[in-house]
This record gives sequence, C-alpha cells and structure tokens, in this order.
Amino acid sequence: MTVLYKANMVRGAEWARLFAERAPDLPFRLWPDIGDPTEVRYLVAWMPPDDIAKSFPNLELVFSVGAGVDQFDITKLPPHIPLVRMLEPGITERMLEYASMAVLALHRDLVHFIAQQREQVWRELPVTQTGERRVGVMGLGLLGQALLGRLKSFGFPLLGWNRSPRSIAGVTCFVGAGALPDFLGQTDILVCLLPLTSETRGILNANLFAHLPRGARLLNVGRGGHLVGADLIAALDSGVLSAAVLDVAEPEPLPAGHPFWSHPRILLTPHIASTTKPETAVEFVLDVIARHRRGEALPGRVDRDRGY
Amino acid sequence: MTVLYKANMVRGAEWARLFAERAPDLPFRLWPDIGDPTEVRYLVAWMPPDDIAKSFPNLELVFSVGAGVDQFDITKLPPHIPLVRMLEPGITERMLEYASMAVLALHRDLVHFIAQQREQVWRELPVTQTGERRVGVMGLGLLGQALLGRLKSFGFPLLGWNRSPRSIAGVTCFVGAGALPDFLGQTDILVCLLPLTSETRGILNANLFAHLPRGARLLNVGRGGHLVGADLIAALDSGVLSAAVLDVAEPEPLPAGHPFWSHPRILLTPHIASTTKPETAVEFVLDVIARHRRGEALPGRVDRDRGY
Repeated sequence: MTVLYKANMVRGAEWARLFAERAPDLPFRLWPDIGDPTEVRYLVAWMPPDDIAKSFPNLELVFSVGAGVDQFDITKLPPHIPLVRMLEPGITERMLEYASMAVLALHRDLVHFIAQQREQVWRELPVTQTGERRVGVMGLGLLGQALLGRLKSFGFPLLGWNRSPRSIAGVTCFVGAGALPDFLGQTDILVCLLPLTSETRGILNANLFAHLPRGARLLNVGRGGHLVGADLIAALDSGVLSAAVLDVAEPEPLPAGHPFWSHPRILLTPHIASTTKPETAVEFVLDVIARHRRGEALPGRVDRDRGY
Repeated sequence: MTVLYKANMVRGAEWARLFAERAPDLPFRLWPDIGDPTEVRYLVAWMPPDDIAKSFPNLELVFSVGAGVDQFDITKLPPHIPLVRMLEPGITERMLEYASMAVLALHRDLVHFIAQQREQVWRELPVTQTGERRVGVMGLGLLGQALLGRLKSFGFPLLGWNRSPRSIAGVTCFVGAGALPDFLGQTDILVCLLPLTSETRGILNANLFAHLPRGARLLNVGRGGHLVGADLIAALDSGVLSAAVLDVAEPEPLPAGHPFWSHPRILLTPHIASTTKPETAVEFVLDVIARHRRGEALPGRVDRDRGY
C-alpha cells in the first residue's frame, strides 16, 4: 500500500521526510519513481497523470495538492475513487497573507505608485479613507470567510457573494446570480476566491466589470480561467477599472509578450498566493487516509456535480 | 484669535470646512491668506514659515500636521511656545495599513516579483513560513506599538527596540544602544518607525545592516534622514539585504536619476504611508486648543531635549 506524490519536487522532499517520521509503515514515493503501480492506493497530485485508473488499478483515493481541483478532469476519474482537496490550515494562512497584502495594496494605490516609480515621478494621490472603500469577496468558502475575518481589523466595509447562503458577522452577504449586480454595485475592491467550474469560467468579464463603481479594483486569487483577459485590458484602458492584482493566469506560466506582463495597471505574481505547507498538509492527508480506512466521511471530498 | 493652516492645500480646504462646522467662532485661515498676523495665536504647519516668532508676535501654540516634528528647527521657536505633534487616530490607522502591507510585501517577496514581472519571468521563489520570519520594529511609540499589535494576527515572531523600556504582550523588547546588536541579529524584517533626532540620523547604515541576518529586509517609514542611501544600495547589491520598501527619502521629492528610483530591490512610495485625516485631526487640534486655554497639559507636546 503506497502513497504516490506528483507535484512540486522541492516540497515533495519535505513530504517524504514528514511521512518517514509520522507514518514510517506507509510507503511513500515521489513521481516518477512509482515502484509497483499495483501497490499505489493513494495519489497526491497537482497535475494528475494521464489515464490514472489504468495506470494504478488499485487506486482508492486521490488528493489535489491545492485548494482547487479544476486541473483534474473529474470525468476521467472512476466514480468509486473519491477526490479530496487540500483543506489544511497552512494553505489558508498563506492565502490570508497574500490576499490581505493585495487588498491593502489596491486600497493604497500601490499599483499606481509602482508605475510612478518606473517613471521617476514623486506625487501623492487623492486619499480614500478605509471606511469609504468597500471590499467584496466572491466565494465564501473556507478561504473567503477567513479573509473577511482578517480584513475586519482594518475597518473596510465588507460584502460577500456566494452561490449558496452564508451568514458572516459584520459582512453584507448576497446569494446567487440574481443578487450579483447589487453586490457589484457596492464593491470598490473585488476579490475573486471562487472555485473554477463550468459556471464560473469567464465570470470576470466586461459585463461584470460594468456593474462595479467606475474605477473599481480587482484581485484575482481564484484561477486564470475566471478572467477574460481582453476584457480586463479594455476595462483598465477605459478607466472602468483602475488597477488589478493577479496571482493566476491562463495559461501558466504566462508566455512572454502577453499584455498582462507590461500593463501599468496590473501587478502580476506567478501563482504563489498560497501553497500547501508540508507540515500541516501531511497531517491532513494522514488524517483523511485514516478516516478512509475506517470508512468514515472525508473532509474536503469534492462533490462531482458542483465541481468543488 | 486666528488659527492659521500651512500644509497640503487639498486637505486644507477640508480643514476649513470642518473648522467652520465645529468651531464657527474660531477664525481659520489658509496660508498664504494670513490676514492680520498679530491675530494668529495657533499655527498648524508641515513646513513652518521662516521667522515664526517675528512674523506672528502673539503666537501661543504650534502644531505639526504630521506625527513627526523633525522638519521644525525647534531652536528657532521661542521656548514659551509649545510644539505639539499630531496624535490623532486617523494617522495611526493609515500607518497601520501601509506598514502591514509593506511587511507582508517584504515577507512574500513582492519586490522580487515586481522585478520578475518587469523581466517577464514566471518563477516561484523558495517559501519562508511566517513562523520563521521575525519582524523587528525600531521605535515603540504609539505607531510602533499599534503595528506590532496588528501584525500579531499574521503569526510573525515579533521583536521591538526602543530607547526607553517598553513592555508589550507577545513582543520581545530590547532597550537602548547596547541591546541593538542582539535585536538586529534576530530580525529578518526591520521596520524603522523612529523619530528623527540628532541621535537617530543615519542610524540605518552599513554597520547596522551588518548585524542583521544575511538577506534581511528593510522597511523605512520613519524619515529619509534615518537612512544612509549609499549604504543601502551597497547592502542590496552585495546581498547583505535582499529588499527594501521606502516611503521616505532625503530630499523629498526625490530627484529624478537618484539610484533609489531604478534599483530592482527597492520599492519606493512618495511619503504617503500616513497622512492626517482631517476629520480626526481637527477634533484633536480643537481639543488641544481647549486644554491650552484652560492651562492643562497638552497631549503630543514635544520634549525639546529629546526632540520628539
């Protein structure tokens, strides 16, 4: 009975060390050193290998090493094999750091000041007080709720939008497609933390931007596929949006020459907002494996119909 | 009896509106429209006018519109005229936003990623967990203490250094020049929030940087005069420091062509970390004026020997 890991190799070495320490009886292998494929019962992957079911006939459970599972083609995974996404506290903490930084950066005009530095221009910009800068989060799962909690201490008026109802103290919550225009109309900094599904692909588009107050700001920490890139460029160039921070793109890595790289109103980072923390992720994986052996419900198990 | 304001004119208009609303009997004037100079009893200024005492023979009290007073030559102010610096909650909140953003940016390699974006390079960098990134704040006044409180929620190990003893829950505090090397040796992100005095001018220099762990990061939200610019450039170029965020410079505005503008490891903003918020600043000034009339102690009164 083997656990096979197929993701970032630097962190993989750390996983191997932690497995050896905490579960010495459970064989752990790093891709591509798969050993006997019939022994592989558990797979931890970012990009899954082709033809999982054929390659590993005795596979019982697959983990996404990230908070999302959109990189998996669920239809290729046999229905009896559960897919579990990473619900570990390390990934949440890293996301809170990055998203807090990015919301503050958008609030405090950092994207504009980076452009001014490049031009060697020393100039103050008009101040918007925190109480007048409304932050709206799309996607109120674990990460979205944690972010709203962290942003509270800074004094922003807070809004949230979700597919299913949520109640969060101090946050004005909106539910479903019908409420989206109302939510957007009151959002000065829009944060996308949605899962990528067939329903949310391309949701950040010209039509959505048109509902935001003119000059609103965008943070995409969801997936590159949420955003229609040409619509973002047009919105920034026309003043519909005034700045964007993007941690994700499509494709990744983003090819040289893509307009995101050089746009003066875009701050781009290479999908580093959050990564699983080996210490806590290994603990989560071992806990899920133990629950699976005991036939219990699995935290983080993906609902194949919803897609997350 | 007139209050004269000599600072940012956009905010000045807001001050005039607030004074008219809250103290309609107290004449308020915006520089250079000083009216009868013998009527000026209170001066609110960023850069004070020359020869204050001669120009305004009946001056009773001077306010710095900022949290610092280093821009004043105190020796030119007659000893009977108190100098008061702005201790208003608006300035603290703005500083907390900026400094939290900048500490998170240094922690999460944002200066490096900005440089990578310019080069169109999509590349992850090695991760340092928050629990292993020690943040040390120099200057434990109102702003320093508030910042350490805000940073607690992110999980950084916290240190503080101050001229006189301070006790802050959850923060390892160091006192005085003798303890500085010990403090620096444990600080991965150094934040300067010191007042600028003859003792602290040039304190951020090659000798100080040499005590930090190699590759440490610097945030200067004090004054440009705290930093020896050539030493910073040398430290960044040799790897002694790996990045710096600077909100202040000397002189300001920083002239075009200065090496700070184009250094790939420097993120520079034009002294915007914190500005007084007219709403709360006018409240503070009116309160101090009332106390002064009643002959009471004045909050924010500068000790001329200490220089802050």
